[in-house]
Amino acid sequence: MSHDGLMEKQTFVLPAPFVTVGGATIRQVRVGFETLGRLNAAGDNAILIPHYFSGTSHFAGRYRPDDPLPGWWDAIVGPGLPLDPDRYFLVGVDSLANVNALDGITVTTGPASLDPDTGRPYGMRFPQVQIRDSVNVQKALLEALGVTRLHAVAGPSMGSMQAYEWAAAYPEFVARLIAVVPCASVDAYTLARIHDLAAAIRLDPDWAGGDYYGQARPLRGLALALRMMTWLSLAPQGCDLHGRQWAQAGQDPERDPDHGFAIDAYLSSLAEASAQVADANSVLYTLRANALFTVGGKASLAEGLGAIKAPALLIPSSNDQMLMPDATRKVRDLLRAQGNAVDYFELDAPLGHLNGATFIAQAAEAMTTFLRR
Amino acid sequence: MSHDGLMEKQTFVLPAPFVTVGGATIRQVRVGFETLGRLNAAGDNAILIPHYFSGTSHFAGRYRPDDPLPGWWDAIVGPGLPLDPDRYFLVGVDSLANVNALDGITVTTGPASLDPDTGRPYGMRFPQVQIRDSVNVQKALLEALGVTRLHAVAGPSMGSMQAYEWAAAYPEFVARLIAVVPCASVDAYTLARIHDLAAAIRLDPDWAGGDYYGQARPLRGLALALRMMTWLSLAPQGCDLHGRQWAQAGQDPERDPDHGFAIDAYLSSLAEASAQVADANSVLYTLRANALFTVGGKASLAEGLGAIKAPALLIPSSNDQMLMPDATRKVRDLLRAQGNAVDYFELDAPLGHLNGATFIAQAAEAMTTFLRR
Repeated sequence: MSHDGLMEKQTFVLPAPFVTVGGATIRQVRVGFETLGRLNAAGDNAILIPHYFSGTSHFAGRYRPDDPLPGWWDAIVGPGLPLDPDRYFLVGVDSLANVNALDGITVTTGPASLDPDTGRPYGMRFPQVQIRDSVNVQKALLEALGVTRLHAVAGPSMGSMQAYEWAAAYPEFVARLIAVVPCASVDAYTLARIHDLAAAIRLDPDWAGGDYYGQARPLRGLALALRMMTWLSLAPQGCDLHGRQWAQAGQDPERDPDHGFAIDAYLSSLAEASAQVADANSVLYTLRANALFTVGGKASLAEGLGAIKAPALLIPSSNDQMLMPDATRKVRDLLRAQGNAVDYFELDAPLGHLNGATFIAQAAEAMTTFLRR
Repeated sequence: MSHDGLMEKQTFVLPAPFVTVGGATIRQVRVGFETLGRLNAAGDNAILIPHYFSGTSHFAGRYRPDDPLPGWWDAIVGPGLPLDPDRYFLVGVDSLANVNALDGITVTTGPASLDPDTGRPYGMRFPQVQIRDSVNVQKALLEALGVTRLHAVAGPSMGSMQAYEWAAAYPEFVARLIAVVPCASVDAYTLARIHDLAAAIRLDPDWAGGDYYGQARPLRGLALALRMMTWLSLAPQGCDLHGRQWAQAGQDPERDPDHGFAIDAYLSSLAEASAQVADANSVLYTLRANALFTVGGKASLAEGLGAIKAPALLIPSSNDQMLMPDATRKVRDLLRAQGNAVDYFELDAPLGHLNGATFIAQAAEAMTTFLRR
């Protein structure tokens, strides 16, 4: 946080070329980050807050006093709240190939970045990055900041993948793990969805094999993918508000196929706004990073979880249709069977997967208890 | 059934121009139908079996001895089974704007049909047809066949919409209603999905505003929509078989973005095969017919159900992610509250919405009891 109480995006430049888990070298990696609170002398009061698919390092607060919305976990960040900047040094980091590459705020290295070898955007020539790669960049940043050990790593959705991966890859560095609307291994059901979110982008003729920079961007395919992602993240209750209302008064959808329903207009307006600042190739890379994720890079879930030493707090959402709570109950049972301490709390609210951000305050007491134990 | 035990597609031509519920006139309507069993002298032993979204009149049996698969409800059709041709006159009818317009077997009238006014395919100039329009065509057929009253109308998914609509529109004509993996009113959650299945087709440049006849067909957009429909119809358990297996041995998806997973290859091969015989515009029309559906055409579910007099057997699937059982429990309670007799049976199998066809035999006893009561 800057001196005036506002959040500030900072830039971390890796001091050396970055080698991905896939073995490719990226000559220069830059990512954005934001912090709140102060690191203690021992360097062990930091909480890393990795973000969800379409999120950024902006986990709380505002950049400017007139920002319409605060960061995505603002409801649980503040004095006396679970993520308490008076106790902890809170760190958010922009992912590699971050979806919001074009928003003018996010700092990321991905397919929209200039390839220093050619001076042109990488496009689909950017190496495939994985969840573990974002974790490794975060580790380099934390070490540069003087962090010796994480008090906790806590994230929702794709942020939970990073949290699990941190705890499995660097068990001595992670004292606690909080996984919200989580996923420890992407299953076939989710692979199928990821495949077709990508297919929607590739179907747009403006995608042009990924070489659309400086030309028309594939906004229709991108908006379709982002809209699909939204309804995949919602539960039926989350749409009830709109019911079968028409998009426009007097324009009965029965009368004309160009007349729509309010729910469609609502989801389209959200997706079209997001598409303006999102980079289609970065969505493809992030989708693929998700598809490739299994904790610890192990085919067996039990084996991947086996490396985790940290106590865990697991917070699924009861009506999550994207990452269903059943899978997290299985993770809970496996972690307990191998001797880990596991707290478990289910969010219960109308928005399905999105409860992990919108209704995270339900889990505040469970998080505070877990973080102070 | 023809004399040799094989099913036969017959064609019904409406004797007069057809006026849709939207007020448009279609000069000539032709639909295919198949029957099994014999109509009794009173004309009241017929069971109508309307089909699901991508189905046809082919509810049972084979056209030729070497057909690889029988019709879609074959498991419950036969002597001693719920849909017993020794007791009942069973009738299946191809829907208007049937999805399989290009398979060489289905007989339908829709956007791929020639407009007699121009001699060219209607394309998107075909009038929007609704579930009620298919019901009205079925009624004309049944009356032409000598049916005086339906012993039952029984269908899965979109077939259940037709069953509900029949019972609400023609309560004196319908003695029993069986609704499987059903939907009595399309909610906002489902509207959002329908919107984007259509968007996938419209995004394909080969769609060309619907005027692709005689040119390249929008097979990529169509296959994407059909693939989405398949995974929307599945439950996580239904994909477990594939796990994270690779599509090709030795082609690790981590190594190359062109290497895929087995689940994606499986769903793509199904969808691409279906796309070969499906008509994209007909998919759009059928999607919109679904979007516009509320039973009895009423905004209020209670009001729409209020017209139904028939006893009902409702058969949702416990893990249906497309049309969740909660909505059917609500229909059950509303029907009971207004005095209808309602039997209720939940399918419990791994395939989610698809249980309504693949695992329908689980409900055989419930159906037999209900039909003979």
